[in-house]
Amino acid sequence: MARPVYLDHAATTPMVPAAVEALTKHLLEVGNPSSLHASGRHARRVVEESRETIAQALNCRPGEVVFTSGGTEADNLAIKGLHWSRAAELGPAPRLVSSSVEHHAVLDPLHWLSEGEEAEVRLLGVDGDGRVDLGELAALLAERAVSMVSVMWANNEVGTLQPIEEVVALAARHGVPVHTDAVQAVGAVPVDFARSGVDALTLTGHKVGGPYGVGALVVRRELQLTPLVHGGGQERDIRSGTLDTPAIAGFAAAVELAVKQQAEHATRVATLRDDLVRGVRAVVPDAVLNGDPERRLPGNAHFSFPGCEGDSLLMLLDARGIECSTGSACSAGVPQASHVLLAMGRSEADARSSLRFSLGHTSTAADVAALVEAIGPCVERARAARI
Amino acid sequence: MARPVYLDHAATTPMVPAAVEALTKHLLEVGNPSSLHASGRHARRVVEESRETIAQALNCRPGEVVFTSGGTEADNLAIKGLHWSRAAELGPAPRLVSSSVEHHAVLDPLHWLSEGEEAEVRLLGVDGDGRVDLGELAALLAERAVSMVSVMWANNEVGTLQPIEEVVALAARHGVPVHTDAVQAVGAVPVDFARSGVDALTLTGHKVGGPYGVGALVVRRELQLTPLVHGGGQERDIRSGTLDTPAIAGFAAAVELAVKQQAEHATRVATLRDDLVRGVRAVVPDAVLNGDPERRLPGNAHFSFPGCEGDSLLMLLDARGIECSTGSACSAGVPQASHVLLAMGRSEADARSSLRFSLGHTSTAADVAALVEAIGPCVERARAARI
Repeated sequence: MARPVYLDHAATTPMVPAAVEALTKHLLEVGNPSSLHASGRHARRVVEESRETIAQALNCRPGEVVFTSGGTEADNLAIKGLHWSRAAELGPAPRLVSSSVEHHAVLDPLHWLSEGEEAEVRLLGVDGDGRVDLGELAALLAERAVSMVSVMWANNEVGTLQPIEEVVALAARHGVPVHTDAVQAVGAVPVDFARSGVDALTLTGHKVGGPYGVGALVVRRELQLTPLVHGGGQERDIRSGTLDTPAIAGFAAAVELAVKQQAEHATRVATLRDDLVRGVRAVVPDAVLNGDPERRLPGNAHFSFPGCEGDSLLMLLDARGIECSTGSACSAGVPQASHVLLAMGRSEADARSSLRFSLGHTSTAADVAALVEAIGPCVERARAARI
Repeated sequence: MARPVYLDHAATTPMVPAAVEALTKHLLEVGNPSSLHASGRHARRVVEESRETIAQALNCRPGEVVFTSGGTEADNLAIKGLHWSRAAELGPAPRLVSSSVEHHAVLDPLHWLSEGEEAEVRLLGVDGDGRVDLGELAALLAERAVSMVSVMWANNEVGTLQPIEEVVALAARHGVPVHTDAVQAVGAVPVDFARSGVDALTLTGHKVGGPYGVGALVVRRELQLTPLVHGGGQERDIRSGTLDTPAIAGFAAAVELAVKQQAEHATRVATLRDDLVRGVRAVVPDAVLNGDPERRLPGNAHFSFPGCEGDSLLMLLDARGIECSTGSACSAGVPQASHVLLAMGRSEADARSSLRFSLGHTSTAADVAALVEAIGPCVERARAARI
């Protein structure tokens, strides 16, 4: 079979050559970065240079980069770690504010804290484009003590960018720290840690052209965080465990390149994406583009196809070698309506009829053309299957 | 400079070619194992085949292998996860029993639980060889409700093997689950999960010739575990986060080979190790071999050198291109006496005078000869430096 048309870069994107090179360069070296001998010190140097590279790319201090195993762990660390460390001074079950369109890596730790009666979790509503309600945030912050606010930089399903600076400004009035899951944003839109004013920011390797299994929480040095993983005391005692030198080197190379090429990359994939949107609409006139039409990720096109099951459509496209995502969880094999679309006020049927096409660094006009060619017949078949 | 003489395989050991090949094979592929399309299903297949390989090597069921980011995370998951899930039925702050010679990845989560008044932690004493006191374990189990027992399979500093089957038999009488950190044991001594009777077992990639950043907790399917990391619901909801396909493939290849070659490997490195011990003793007659003389890891030789600072000796050897470890934490730059040797009844000075030499799959007779040649003058200089 020919190389598939990969339109699922938001799920994971191929490694860029610079990251592959940086990773493989260190794969055969030995030396635990915690060891005191020459090999250990060499590994430590690689880790610290990688940390500096990432810090420069995101405009934070090197000491603010805490390496984790990826985005999910970084989100959990930010939420549980900040909440636990602030809960003691705030009294029983402080309020924790987030949004109803977060990734499960944010929603599920929140749910767990609330189930254990450790937090009163309040999720901000969003408008029809998926932007959080800032008035509601202001009200929730004014009402009672809040341990932290977590609002994603860009939505992973519909691509909507959140008003992070406004969120930070509101939270700052109450001295409440803000975390943002920027997994989808880094390399796609400008992300400046210091300038954004956020206190903690999640990024991950495999969404920026780096390897799996590595990510980071960027967190202001002044902030106290209760660790999730205790042990050898690595990463300023915030995250113990032997540092993965090769993956960290690959991650840093990818972040550096992604940030350097961000503007150019965004222009290129947004052009392709706009072609894709036009092309799909020309063939399926009743397809609905979801998410903010302007303030969205450059590589994201998320549609509802009325009368279709998203999962069936996904499989029909897959059979033609076109790979995309419903953007919703389907771990038990039971198609579930996207919580993001439901939060945006869509019906269950609408939410289940949607597909995400996400473009990345390897995407080409040929990929877009292949989708535009296939989408018509696939939608037709998906509609027929439902009758 | 020539290739260093690497005698620190217990800290991390080089990747074996089979693991490098398995990892790099999947490095350029794209596809999130949670994605439904062909690339996703392919990645999922690689992960599941790797899980089966590891299950076969350790004699557990594939569904019992929970992939983590490494040994430290697996230890934390076992301890916090089991304790939290059992605490509710056992009443406030149940007892948690472990040993005084555990790795920090076990001791530090215990300490944290005890600090938060979530557990009453009791650490078993050990004899002069570092073996846990089974009589004390029996008494601690009989006294009050215990949430779990965690005793390492083999000690990372002095190499002593623990009587795991006896620990399991005692705990079983009270229906208490047993976790064991087998990070140093897999590939070095026979490790059979089902036969051992343990309920949870930690292993990690970079100690068995696999990559960093990946490990596993093998855990009986019947056992409930509270996750540390919530999110996408991977790994039966026990450990969320995108699975690191290339690292998992490399890990599985390494575990398979390490287990297959275990007996042969153990014989080979034990012979080298015995030569090393004899050679060191011939040059430094008052050097004390620590740990159980018989029931120990084949590649481990741990000495106290009376009148030396272990750290100075380490740096003197390092200057001659010989890499080893004090086996104790020195994260703040301040040499600390090993908690393992202190637990074994040694004095602070004794504990600070020790070095660990650990052999592995790349070790040769020339490595041993180089150490034997260097150790005499280095000990002499280290002693002179202290006067």
